[in-house]
Amino acid sequence: MRKKLYHGAAYYPELWNEETIEEDLKLMVEAGINVVRMGEFAWSSMEKEEGKIELDFFVKVIEKLNEHGIETVMCTPTPTPPIWLTHNHPERMFVDGNGRVMGHGSRQHICTNNAHFREKAAIITEEIAKAVSHLPGLIAWQLDNEFKCHVSECMCETCRDLWHQWLEERYGTIDHLNDAWGTHIWSQYYHRFDQVPQPVATPFLHNSSLKTMYQLFSYEKIAEFSDEQAAIIRKYSKAPITHNSTTFFHVNNERLYENLDFASFDTYAERKNFHSYLFNCDLWRNFKSGRDYWIMETSPSHSASLESHAAPHQNGYLKAEAVAAYALGGEAFCYWLWRQQRTGCEQPHGSVISAWGKPTVGFENVKEVEAVRKEIQSIILASTPLQAEVAITYSDVAKAFLKTEPHDGLDYRSLVIDFYEKILSAGFHRDLIPENASLKGYKLLFTPFIHYLSEDYLIKATAFVENGGIWIVGPLTGGRTAHHTIHTDAALGALEEQAGVETLYTYPMDGTESKGDFMGLVAPLSIWSSVFEPKKAEVVGRIQDGISEGHAFITEHKRGKGKIVMLGSLPVGDEGDILLKKCLTHYAEEACVLVKTDVSEGTIVAPRAGKMGEVIWVIVNMDGKGGAVTLPNDGKDAITGRIVSKGKCVIGPYEHKVIQF
Amino acid sequence: MRKKLYHGAAYYPELWNEETIEEDLKLMVEAGINVVRMGEFAWSSMEKEEGKIELDFFVKVIEKLNEHGIETVMCTPTPTPPIWLTHNHPERMFVDGNGRVMGHGSRQHICTNNAHFREKAAIITEEIAKAVSHLPGLIAWQLDNEFKCHVSECMCETCRDLWHQWLEERYGTIDHLNDAWGTHIWSQYYHRFDQVPQPVATPFLHNSSLKTMYQLFSYEKIAEFSDEQAAIIRKYSKAPITHNSTTFFHVNNERLYENLDFASFDTYAERKNFHSYLFNCDLWRNFKSGRDYWIMETSPSHSASLESHAAPHQNGYLKAEAVAAYALGGEAFCYWLWRQQRTGCEQPHGSVISAWGKPTVGFENVKEVEAVRKEIQSIILASTPLQAEVAITYSDVAKAFLKTEPHDGLDYRSLVIDFYEKILSAGFHRDLIPENASLKGYKLLFTPFIHYLSEDYLIKATAFVENGGIWIVGPLTGGRTAHHTIHTDAALGALEEQAGVETLYTYPMDGTESKGDFMGLVAPLSIWSSVFEPKKAEVVGRIQDGISEGHAFITEHKRGKGKIVMLGSLPVGDEGDILLKKCLTHYAEEACVLVKTDVSEGTIVAPRAGKMGEVIWVIVNMDGKGGAVTLPNDGKDAITGRIVSKGKCVIGPYEHKVIQF
Amino acid sequence: MRKKLYHGAAYYPELWNEETIEEDLKLMVEAGINVVRMGEFAWSSMEKEEGKIELDFFVKVIEKLNEHGIETVMCTPTPTPPIWLTHNHPERMFVDGNGRVMGHGSRQHICTNNAHFREKAAIITEEIAKAVSHLPGLIAWQLDNEFKCHVSECMCETCRDLWHQWLEERYGTIDHLNDAWGTHIWSQYYHRFDQVPQPVATPFLHNSSLKTMYQLFSYEKIAEFSDEQAAIIRKYSKAPITHNSTTFFHVNNERLYENLDFASFDTYAERKNFHSYLFNCDLWRNFKSGRDYWIMETSPSHSASLESHAAPHQNGYLKAEAVAAYALGGEAFCYWLWRQQRTGCEQPHGSVISAWGKPTVGFENVKEVEAVRKEIQSIILASTPLQAEVAITYSDVAKAFLKTEPHDGLDYRSLVIDFYEKILSAGFHRDLIPENASLKGYKLLFTPFIHYLSEDYLIKATAFVENGGIWIVGPLTGGRTAHHTIHTDAALGALEEQAGVETLYTYPMDGTESKGDFMGLVAPLSIWSSVFEPKKAEVVGRIQDGISEGHAFITEHKRGKGKIVMLGSLPVGDEGDILLKKCLTHYAEEACVLVKTDVSEGTIVAPRAGKMGEVIWVIVNMDGKGGAVTLPNDGKDAITGRIVSKGKCVIGPYEHKVIQF
Repeated sequence: MRKKLYHGAAYYPELWNEETIEEDLKLMVEAGINVVRMGEFAWSSMEKEEGKIELDFFVKVIEKLNEHGIETVMCTPTPTPPIWLTHNHPERMFVDGNGRVMGHGSRQHICTNNAHFREKAAIITEEIAKAVSHLPGLIAWQLDNEFKCHVSECMCETCRDLWHQWLEERYGTIDHLNDAWGTHIWSQYYHRFDQVPQPVATPFLHNSSLKTMYQLFSYEKIAEFSDEQAAIIRKYSKAPITHNSTTFFHVNNERLYENLDFASFDTYAERKNFHSYLFNCDLWRNFKSGRDYWIMETSPSHSASLESHAAPHQNGYLKAEAVAAYALGGEAFCYWLWRQQRTGCEQPHGSVISAWGKPTVGFENVKEVEAVRKEIQSIILASTPLQAEVAITYSDVAKAFLKTEPHDGLDYRSLVIDFYEKILSAGFHRDLIPENASLKGYKLLFTPFIHYLSEDYLIKATAFVENGGIWIVGPLTGGRTAHHTIHTDAALGALEEQAGVETLYTYPMDGTESKGDFMGLVAPLSIWSSVFEPKKAEVVGRIQDGISEGHAFITEHKRGKGKIVMLGSLPVGDEGDILLKKCLTHYAEEACVLVKTDVSEGTIVAPRAGKMGEVIWVIVNMDGKGGAVTLPNDGKDAITGRIVSKGKCVIGPYEHKVIQF
Repeated sequence: MRKKLYHGAAYYPELWNEETIEEDLKLMVEAGINVVRMGEFAWSSMEKEEGKIELDFFVKVIEKLNEHGIETVMCTPTPTPPIWLTHNHPERMFVDGNGRVMGHGSRQHICTNNAHFREKAAIITEEIAKAVSHLPGLIAWQLDNEFKCHVSECMCETCRDLWHQWLEERYGTIDHLNDAWGTHIWSQYYHRFDQVPQPVATPFLHNSSLKTMYQLFSYEKIAEFSDEQAAIIRKYSKAPITHNSTTFFHVNNERLYENLDFASFDTYAERKNFHSYLFNCDLWRNFKSGRDYWIMETSPSHSASLESHAAPHQNGYLKAEAVAAYALGGEAFCYWLWRQQRTGCEQPHGSVISAWGKPTVGFENVKEVEAVRKEIQSIILASTPLQAEVAITYSDVAKAFLKTEPHDGLDYRSLVIDFYEKILSAGFHRDLIPENASLKGYKLLFTPFIHYLSEDYLIKATAFVENGGIWIVGPLTGGRTAHHTIHTDAALGALEEQAGVETLYTYPMDGTESKGDFMGLVAPLSIWSSVFEPKKAEVVGRIQDGISEGHAFITEHKRGKGKIVMLGSLPVGDEGDILLKKCLTHYAEEACVLVKTDVSEGTIVAPRAGKMGEVIWVIVNMDGKGGAVTLPNDGKDAITGRIVSKGKCVIGPYEHKVIQF
Repeated sequence: MRKKLYHGAAYYPELWNEETIEEDLKLMVEAGINVVRMGEFAWSSMEKEEGKIELDFFVKVIEKLNEHGIETVMCTPTPTPPIWLTHNHPERMFVDGNGRVMGHGSRQHICTNNAHFREKAAIITEEIAKAVSHLPGLIAWQLDNEFKCHVSECMCETCRDLWHQWLEERYGTIDHLNDAWGTHIWSQYYHRFDQVPQPVATPFLHNSSLKTMYQLFSYEKIAEFSDEQAAIIRKYSKAPITHNSTTFFHVNNERLYENLDFASFDTYAERKNFHSYLFNCDLWRNFKSGRDYWIMETSPSHSASLESHAAPHQNGYLKAEAVAAYALGGEAFCYWLWRQQRTGCEQPHGSVISAWGKPTVGFENVKEVEAVRKEIQSIILASTPLQAEVAITYSDVAKAFLKTEPHDGLDYRSLVIDFYEKILSAGFHRDLIPENASLKGYKLLFTPFIHYLSEDYLIKATAFVENGGIWIVGPLTGGRTAHHTIHTDAALGALEEQAGVETLYTYPMDGTESKGDFMGLVAPLSIWSSVFEPKKAEVVGRIQDGISEGHAFITEHKRGKGKIVMLGSLPVGDEGDILLKKCLTHYAEEACVLVKTDVSEGTIVAPRAGKMGEVIWVIVNMDGKGGAVTLPNDGKDAITGRIVSKGKCVIGPYEHKVIQF
């Protein structure tokens, strides 16, 4: 791909008549749409009756789009199996944790592990691949749609059997499982794998190991389905394959993208949560390193279903989103959806064109996006996003652990996004990186909220430190084993030796009136915490008041050329924010982090590298209040061509500038 | 009927011994009870064993009551099928949306569509009709009790089959259904009617068409049961038949009363919601035009069950309720219940007499009601409620649409009652009229919150406008088709042409900081809104701020002698109240609405017409704070016989006056 | 027992290896642990395969413990049936009110009434009894663990049949049941016992009688299981038997302890709810009169599971808890748990030793407890808790009635604890006594929140009054019959005659703006109330405002040498607190209550009697703020041996003093 910046929309031609499609094509050209995604829910149109697959309609739409200069991302239609697959087949359906068997009429109603479904899914996918792979306008594939967005773990009998197989593969013998999970607790002990229950109704909580492993099993199974589908397409097509995901869904994104070609995400963050929007950009850029991500779905104005809705964007915000997306490494900015749904359950959702064929409230904003796309395309295509020096590890495995053990309503996504926001608003360029990503090029690494820290990660991060990096570990990191049990050698296992500390105690700081100090600042401490006794480390943050007064909650330990900093607790409230930012800034300075900007809150700088190595700053105001950035040197405004002097550079509400240095 | 004003109570003689019944009769006479309702839960007493029907007891009670001057409304006992109908018959029971099969022990536990139930219900009803129709005290019938008050749509297999039949009758062919519902969305597409699911568990929302149609199907089925029961009774009895309903229940009241003789309702509104009480009076008066309604159930003090209770009425409030009820067109004011339940689940409910046979805290209030009934009876019987000039359409079909698509927690009942309250507190006499009611005699018509506006309604309302009426349409009205889908010709379909507007956009105003102006007033706008571009219409309310600044949210369009006013959004907050009242008052003036009073908030005027056409005002203070009305002319106090001068007329807390002009 | 004060911990040696056990033994000695409880979840370790019971491990652990001076409470492992009892046997599992069948993986998953379970439970219990009864360190037994802590009433088919038997035993004929429950209401009427449903899903509430009787049936069945288990053990062992319960669980504690030897409880009250902690001590002391209670479980710091946690105790609080426990009649103060769980679902729970074998944050506090245990042991063993003169009746039967009929979210536990707190904070020594306890020795008796007042109780309490006691009845007491129906002779049945009042009305005071006065104080009235007309009684508290203005809500009636005081309503808010305390103090004075102290809030005095009849005061500060007590006479500090003068005696935060007079 990467021959242009894409500006796209999800399109459902199978729901409209020919005349409307013609109208749509003209309007797409007017709106500047150059790519559409289609097919993901069209199984019943493609294979109305079992075995009778008709794809001519889609072939013709792709051709017609191409004639209008619009390229196509083709999807497999597996999220919505037709009635002939589901009717009178409860055994094929998804079963939730309360034993409710899902029925036809919505989506994701079938168990994706059902063998019969898999067989039919393989056939339709192969037929589509055969039919459209050769078409000139076909530039990419999307598998299915938003895997596991509505459902999490399935409890059907197929899954039960696969669960037992998976456990056997993982543990070998039942006694290994019994030991690892400590099943003699509460007499859970199993004699055979086939006795291990799925996490269905019990009077109180299940064993943590069982709960977490069932999530990891489910992660693996959906990824296997994805792998299988991708392999079928690759037999016929060289076009790259993606899947549109989010951090909300019940998937392991890192694993999922392993066998796909590029990463894409959907986002419906409201304007007030623009940091959550940016979080996605900074994360998805790193799922397929060196390959631009796509925003596959976002609303031109507001998301909505029959039962809820978001607030529509202010005018101007969509353009700011698009500039930020392209500048942070996005190749495509696509809407859900082109034409408002006439039926179903998402009629109220924002679209580019209404169901009656007229511009919606978002239409002018879409045209602004197109204008800006043209404006910045050449600059963006001639440059690449700069790698950040600050990295934060993101892990869907950690999300599963925290879902099993939320302590007191903790939610992994919220915790990580809040943490990210502090780094963002301090003006650092940052990468969110998957758990198994390389640490090359980073100077400062954060590993918060990861109950289970793998041996691989520990080795990698320690090497990073030896080579000069500063690694900030915690809070809530390292206290659980791979099986979601407690370490028996030390509270945080092997990490403690590396970090030169002993964890004296772990307990919830909430309600204990504990505070923590760091470099003269003091803030209340919160969440489940580790209290340290330095062994080789130094205390840099000490607990005040509460039941561990005088002990450490932040320590640092020099190793090789770098440092391991243990962050045992979470400073909270306004004072906690200040303390955390101080901590961050302090270690960033110590680590010689340079990719950082003096920018007012609500405005961001996306740094890029031109082909000659020159630095380009894309500055965008995201909060609609306008802002300012300090330019470190004189530069050139790449849009106007004018010289801009170093020093304060003002930016209007939702406006952007591209500065070349 | 209409030979007297009724003052009644629900009575359960089957639960008490002979001695207690004797005691009751004496106490009823003391309390001034002249009608009782009975039999609605007595199936097990009437037909203890299947097929052995014994009704002598009830015959004797009716006779004995009659000897004491107390008339009887006899009920059919179908809400509580006996154990011989239910035990070991799960297939006959009601099934809820989560698949839970209801058990014996409460009420409404059987599916009212079950054929076996219907057969047994027909037999018992016929036997009762035979046994009591000829009795002198028998003045009316009530079918069942509060249809669908505890349950909404049933998901049993009987209903599934009837659903398929109903769909076939409605749509003819499955492809008509597929087209109308747009079922290729999410590959819902059906090949045969028997594949169409009931709206049971799915991973996300069902198709809006399916959800709404299942509600309409259920509405129709319970009405058919009602029709069937009424027909049986009519074979033996000439006494009029009713059913006691509310706007809470899952029925289409308009359809339900179609084949019944008079309308009655139950209300347990707390004193602080007196406008909700009046809402019922103003609505029920119009379900059977020209026929007085009954308040079949209200508490002498407070409603309660084992698990909850309302606040008891203040002393005096009950009397105010009764006066308002009679004055607004009520023929009967009846309590639930006469003697406190000794057992079951409603023991704590307010009653006239306690379970131990003594006056309750409400007893003196009941005696006050009787005094006032006697006081005003001749005046009321010699007059009829004046038709209002202002009408608001009420629609249980709209309620179903809004239940499927509440946007963001919107509730039809609350929306309509709040809207009604503004008209009430502005001093207008008003009718709430069913969707298919005649518009004759009205000058100003409101049609708010009706997602689907039928063609018939549009024709009727347009004719009303042509003849000089002012029709205020919206908010939230007209945006959906009969199948609960989006129009494809215009946002509001054919309505737009009539109203001389084009709807530019529809979206939720919430969170957009939009305001609207009207005649110099400004207020925040809320809920899902339509933004207008006038075609032939004029803009009279314009949007300020937000994303549609400068466009219209209120337009007016002259047609024939009248006007169509489009109200595209809901002004909210204190400023919204003022703006809406201004709007209302303005158009009322323009429409020459005369039946209006200058009355302080919390006090109402119920205007009636005497036999000679003279106007009678029944003034009641409902809020316990007292108030005042401006009398437009000198009149006569019909109770004291004194002349009252025009001008300010003061009314004490919970007091009333009847003024003849 | 009673040869020492116990300081113990729950221990799970079956989950750890030999080396760890050795380590544990040493650490227990260091921490001063002299008793452990074990075995309660170890069924799968004891009987890994069905029928192959191996108990050597436990025998050896008991012996080893004994060698280290640590005694053992052995448990039966029935709360956690192994997989061979549950796998593929849904018919044996617990079924909840929504029909969900519980699965393996947690605890209490089997129906304790299942015959097969009972058989297997009897065998394992008998084998354990045979194996360990003779061991020197074995000092007591605990049956199962926290009966019905996670589950309430089971709806399985076994229970259904037992329910029918139980009903037949209770009611003899189905018509007695029909009469008692008034089943012709809503046509519930049953022809045979086997038709009476369990309280499963219905469209609205079940009959109150059915709901309450099903709870009482379930109470009885779990007690029968307890009886059965105890009988098996007694065939082999003379050691006393207990069960660890709380007031949260779905058991009738009074009935449960009837056939056990001593009473014990578990408590995880947070520091801020220390009155709730004391409530347990004052109640459990009286379940087995004359026999010290045990605190079988409490956390050294905080309770927690994967999904929630309490705030850890402040340092010092644990010691205060222990002193209070021993002083108020406790023989043992035991932790849950010794070594932090490595697996399962309670890993985060506070413990004495961490999973990695180190002291936890609570360890030093545990050592303080041991120090104080040694300090006060001889004094405690040489004295007994003084009986209080003020008693409050506690009834789990009342809890069941209030669960069926909570009026508006009322909760028996909270109501009684709040009531208790007023008596506690007024400085009275008090006993919470089971419903059937003797009233001997008391002067002032409170009977609040007991919907159903049994005939036996009424006779006993009336005799108490005749002999000079003052009995304060209500609020919410006496209004229901044994079958949970309404009296038909008088609102409060036979109680009214005894109390010399007629109850005019019963209704909820909330929302009526009623106030009540008593001795010059005025406070708002709340909850479901009785309004009295004195017959022989005198009015001492009168209602102001509202709908019963001028009537009585407190009356007193002299009978014999004492008085019955009716308290018809609950004064609430700060004024209500003051009024209630005034009422309490007034009647305490009148009843010549002497066992009372002038103590600041947050500090308590536990009075004990020495062997020579001398009075000993154990003074403990529970709120961490310190406090003061007025000593009525000079005394001796039993710890320091110093003389202390009468008058103000200051006590530090969480500190204690033992004063001998």
